[in-house]
Amino acid sequence: MPDIPASRARSDLSRFLNPRGVAVVGVSGEPDRIGGQALRLLADFGYTGRVYPVNPKYGEVRGLTCYPDLLAVPQPCDVALIALSAPHVIGAIEQCGRAGIPYALVLAGGFSEVGAEGRALQEKLVAAARKANVRMVGPNCLGILNLRDNARIGFGGTAQLTTLKPGPMAMVTQSGGFGFGVVAIAAYFGVGCNYAISSGNEADLTLLDWVAYLIERDDVEVVVAFMEGITEGRRLIEIGERALELGKPILVWKVGNTDIGSRAATSHSARLTSGYELYRAAFRRGGLVEIRDVDDLVDVAKAFFIRKLPAGNRVGVLTLSGGAGVLLADRCVESGLALPEFAPATTEKLKETLVSFASSSNPVDATANGYNDNFASYGRAVELVLADPNVDQVLVRIPRGKSARPWAENLMRALGGTDKPLVMNWPTSPDDNGDVLKWLEENGVPCILGAGRAVRALAALTEFSRKRREQRRRGGRAFVRAAPRGAIDLPAGGGPLGEHRSKQVLSRYGMPVVRERLLAPEEIESLAAAPLPFPLAVKIESPDVPHKTEAGAVQLGIGDLATLKQAAREVVAAARAHAPGARIEGVLVQEMAAGTEVIAGSVNDPSFGPTVTFGLGGIFTELMGDVTHRFAPFDTETALEMIREIRGSRVLTGYRGRPALDVAALADALARLSLLAADHADRIAEIDVNPLFVREAGKGVVAADALVVMKTTK
Amino acid sequence: MPDIPASRARSDLSRFLNPRGVAVVGVSGEPDRIGGQALRLLADFGYTGRVYPVNPKYGEVRGLTCYPDLLAVPQPCDVALIALSAPHVIGAIEQCGRAGIPYALVLAGGFSEVGAEGRALQEKLVAAARKANVRMVGPNCLGILNLRDNARIGFGGTAQLTTLKPGPMAMVTQSGGFGFGVVAIAAYFGVGCNYAISSGNEADLTLLDWVAYLIERDDVEVVVAFMEGITEGRRLIEIGERALELGKPILVWKVGNTDIGSRAATSHSARLTSGYELYRAAFRRGGLVEIRDVDDLVDVAKAFFIRKLPAGNRVGVLTLSGGAGVLLADRCVESGLALPEFAPATTEKLKETLVSFASSSNPVDATANGYNDNFASYGRAVELVLADPNVDQVLVRIPRGKSARPWAENLMRALGGTDKPLVMNWPTSPDDNGDVLKWLEENGVPCILGAGRAVRALAALTEFSRKRREQRRRGGRAFVRAAPRGAIDLPAGGGPLGEHRSKQVLSRYGMPVVRERLLAPEEIESLAAAPLPFPLAVKIESPDVPHKTEAGAVQLGIGDLATLKQAAREVVAAARAHAPGARIEGVLVQEMAAGTEVIAGSVNDPSFGPTVTFGLGGIFTELMGDVTHRFAPFDTETALEMIREIRGSRVLTGYRGRPALDVAALADALARLSLLAADHADRIAEIDVNPLFVREAGKGVVAADALVVMKTTK
Repeated sequence: MPDIPASRARSDLSRFLNPRGVAVVGVSGEPDRIGGQALRLLADFGYTGRVYPVNPKYGEVRGLTCYPDLLAVPQPCDVALIALSAPHVIGAIEQCGRAGIPYALVLAGGFSEVGAEGRALQEKLVAAARKANVRMVGPNCLGILNLRDNARIGFGGTAQLTTLKPGPMAMVTQSGGFGFGVVAIAAYFGVGCNYAISSGNEADLTLLDWVAYLIERDDVEVVVAFMEGITEGRRLIEIGERALELGKPILVWKVGNTDIGSRAATSHSARLTSGYELYRAAFRRGGLVEIRDVDDLVDVAKAFFIRKLPAGNRVGVLTLSGGAGVLLADRCVESGLALPEFAPATTEKLKETLVSFASSSNPVDATANGYNDNFASYGRAVELVLADPNVDQVLVRIPRGKSARPWAENLMRALGGTDKPLVMNWPTSPDDNGDVLKWLEENGVPCILGAGRAVRALAALTEFSRKRREQRRRGGRAFVRAAPRGAIDLPAGGGPLGEHRSKQVLSRYGMPVVRERLLAPEEIESLAAAPLPFPLAVKIESPDVPHKTEAGAVQLGIGDLATLKQAAREVVAAARAHAPGARIEGVLVQEMAAGTEVIAGSVNDPSFGPTVTFGLGGIFTELMGDVTHRFAPFDTETALEMIREIRGSRVLTGYRGRPALDVAALADALARLSLLAADHADRIAEIDVNPLFVREAGKGVVAADALVVMKTTK
Repeated sequence: MPDIPASRARSDLSRFLNPRGVAVVGVSGEPDRIGGQALRLLADFGYTGRVYPVNPKYGEVRGLTCYPDLLAVPQPCDVALIALSAPHVIGAIEQCGRAGIPYALVLAGGFSEVGAEGRALQEKLVAAARKANVRMVGPNCLGILNLRDNARIGFGGTAQLTTLKPGPMAMVTQSGGFGFGVVAIAAYFGVGCNYAISSGNEADLTLLDWVAYLIERDDVEVVVAFMEGITEGRRLIEIGERALELGKPILVWKVGNTDIGSRAATSHSARLTSGYELYRAAFRRGGLVEIRDVDDLVDVAKAFFIRKLPAGNRVGVLTLSGGAGVLLADRCVESGLALPEFAPATTEKLKETLVSFASSSNPVDATANGYNDNFASYGRAVELVLADPNVDQVLVRIPRGKSARPWAENLMRALGGTDKPLVMNWPTSPDDNGDVLKWLEENGVPCILGAGRAVRALAALTEFSRKRREQRRRGGRAFVRAAPRGAIDLPAGGGPLGEHRSKQVLSRYGMPVVRERLLAPEEIESLAAAPLPFPLAVKIESPDVPHKTEAGAVQLGIGDLATLKQAAREVVAAARAHAPGARIEGVLVQEMAAGTEVIAGSVNDPSFGPTVTFGLGGIFTELMGDVTHRFAPFDTETALEMIREIRGSRVLTGYRGRPALDVAALADALARLSLLAADHADRIAEIDVNPLFVREAGKGVVAADALVVMKTTK
């Protein structure tokens, strides 16, 4: 786990967000220049703190006294907004330190994003900031928009829009231009944002610093994080756990996930991008919700603004058109939501309420006859479904026409008495009955145009709620260790261990391995009887031949002593031919194991730390990509989740009359592997257990081959 | 293939869409009643044809002469809009016949959608219409909106909106309320619709009749079909082929695809819903493009309105923000689009054009410095990429701010000289620079807000274009028959054939099967030598034991004559125990076959006719759902596509040093199976070839087991 100083993790950044005074260093009288834009933004949008232009060239700008340098600026001044070009920034930071200004926002590019020279300049900048005890956003950023307090501290086109609006969202973005554009789009679709931070090159404060801070704020319900890559994967997971405790989601929008995307991300920033698979594994945990586009952001944010979480995945759907009901039902089922049968009493009352040829089962289709009574019966139907004990949440196709407003007002009263979330699917153009749409949304009922998008919003609430119940069930308890921390005999230095050494390490943590003997070639030559019952396998033991099969240094199914001796000679010769000078540590004579083949492994990721990967053997993993990942360590509960979530899991849990295999032993082995990887993350880089054979229930698992790779210290 | 009378398929429905006169039967003076609404829609929206109110109760309505019945209505009158309740409709249809009115639109519900009584009434209605030689839309529909000619022939809330607008889209919907709502939404987002038809219960004219007709019209570029289910799957495919020839897409929006969805569809209409898998197989063919939501519809329609198809899948992406470029690149790659490297000359010129720290490779990131010259260099960059020979289509993040309009105007000139489609990704709120957005879209450049949505639009063009090239390559040629039409010896009556009989049928079409002998039990008892080389399999041959393994009536790996005789006795006993009274047609003695196991089968679908399914054996098909479908008959080219498109295809084509298997022989076998299923679709209901063993290249395939099920005639 990366080492985060507690002081950094818990920074109170409230004065940075809402400063009592801002000094604009490098202010300009020309309104389009960056230093001019920055001043305009503070002056024109109602910021009530003090604004201090700083530029030795001016005596005053726009009627404000202009100071020659930061040392001359009066207190209180919490933030220096530095609009100077790259070479002049360090001097300004040093002045901040001397002037006692705790926060600086550096707009200029020309640092780590432009090559080696820029990286060197950025390192100097960081050193200067640390020395001056100044916390910094940027460089190479667009600044901070505090729309709640009208403090727009930065520059750029989006910052100047009058259509931006405050609201309980916060946005932190590694791409300022992109992320601020999203803030404008969200406002257009009714989602206000109190705080938006462009984190730039993150020389000091990072995206995660801001996310960790913002999620704690009372005026923030949802934090959006637009990220190209982070270096503190474990911290992301921890912040996610905290978000879940708080009941607020972090909407994570990760880009640079495909090969070409990653290539572009690398050329765009110096950040280390971990594999998207690991990000996705992280997003499945805690209060993190992955979003993939701006529509997604808007819909999911609105759903969380309801501030009601469903108790389960059961959705009641009501429509006035069969086609819409079928479409919504399709999308629900595809998204893992269930359309339960209503309780008998509900169905009975629905039948009394609706016309005879309406559908009173789920999805309810009140038919166009719902229009005939100004939606009185349709409104009653919604209330009945909301009250149904089989229903956790409700999705309603809103009626259109002039009676929709009174219908909506009645519905709002019903919503006051329920803790179930309700989302509307809007059936017509947004400007047809647009006032009803606006009124409902202002009163906390999302009205979402697309069926799939409306369902997606409920699915996000459902999954968050599921994770929250799961977190509460776990309570404060740490996970249950499957094995004690083991002192393991690891050689100094890096690189792969031989198979036998690797298995010894695994054995130390209780992973069952095949019976085997490591013998010197001459010991084998002089054997009078087999050391283990036939049939046997013979393999070279050498740290320099990690891929033994490819080297021809493995022989299987040996049935007698003479063949055993011959095989030993041949694998030694093959290893020597394959890797002249290889260290031959002996010949491994081992039992032939059998069972259903699975693969377990661990990669110690630079951002996420030790991880465990699991899948079925052979083509399932290689061709079908049917694998799953978790972060080590974990207990058997999590291991069972892994086993159950691969697509081919029924190979293990039994299907079509085939017996269930020893899933309990497999889960235990995965948990032990995770402990080994986590306890020795300082030394172990990778582990492969391949194949791991799973036998019938009660008969355990056994590792037939294994490889441990030690970290190379640079 | 369903039998479509040529006259129906080729109906000229232009007078139905744009009648010279419309009689409103059951007109009402009350504007909110259906008969009143119908009159208002014709009177208030500029319809220039004649309107004839019909109601014996009135002398005139809204200043128009009201006629007592249809016989009294003057000519020309092309359409009778029947706004009577269900029991009175048949009389009106009969009047149409006598009055020579060729088309009727029946709004009332109360027919097949409300149970047995309604179904009977609908049958009578159809009979009356046939007798009267009247073509009919409905019953239970909202009517026809002809926005091009201002003929709104129907009723309902959407029909009354003034915001609807004409345009080169047409919509046919099985759910009137839903589909007309979509027309309103599309108009709001800039997609006009010339014609919208609510097909209702489709007692006469069906959704496909309208789609087939509309796609031929010059004023229609895109047809949208919202469908819950159709009974003429083959006709859908044929219409799709025609659409591809015409270069116009049919956007198919199918609902009722999940179990719960299908259940709801069944309760909503009497239509037979074929499995969604078959619909998807159909959508992959011809000019059909599957859409799943209203956003999708809007974006894809706009892309086709460009009227330029990309020559390939290579996209040039340009942005002013690295984050946006990475996001767009991710979505392109995920959607099967490629980001090629630019030609060296393009890269060189881009480097000259853009600032030094911009990215001149694909995706281009001009950085915020693109703003400094009023986008002159960014505009030049777009032109360079458009002209690049490695690029088939271009995706541009539009700049914002006051220079965007002149930039866009310059770009438009460049677009005039290229046949490559270009889509814009809009970076900010739609009301920030909204006039530029509007101007661009009016000039045929889609400006799409979400990155994923913009990419989806290009991906739809790309796939359509690929299919069109493929169709042209095929030319007029019919597919190549792998086998002649065979006379096959099929028993009368329905139900399964025994394994040996089934394989004889397959053999007749050239499918290789294992060597085997069908012997009577007593013949086996008296055998002096094995009829085939050991090892052998022994199975019961009985049409009444189609699942032999479950019945214990299969024994494998038999190595000598005594065991063979014993096994024969045992499988007979097991079959008798499993199904007392089963017809035992003998005992099958067959070679043990080996190879890589695949499954091939055929289902004769009520809507789509004979289909062929293919997948790898065992858990790949059963647990991973890794199967693919095609419509029979087809040739080996299509069979090769099937083999290549399953996820596990590399098991067959070779991976990690494993040899390629006999894919050519497998493709041949699949094509032969498809011919068998198609040639004998009148008799054969299902075929299973499982397992079909595939051997190494050059060594062929062999069916080890097979089952043919005959159709049961009712």
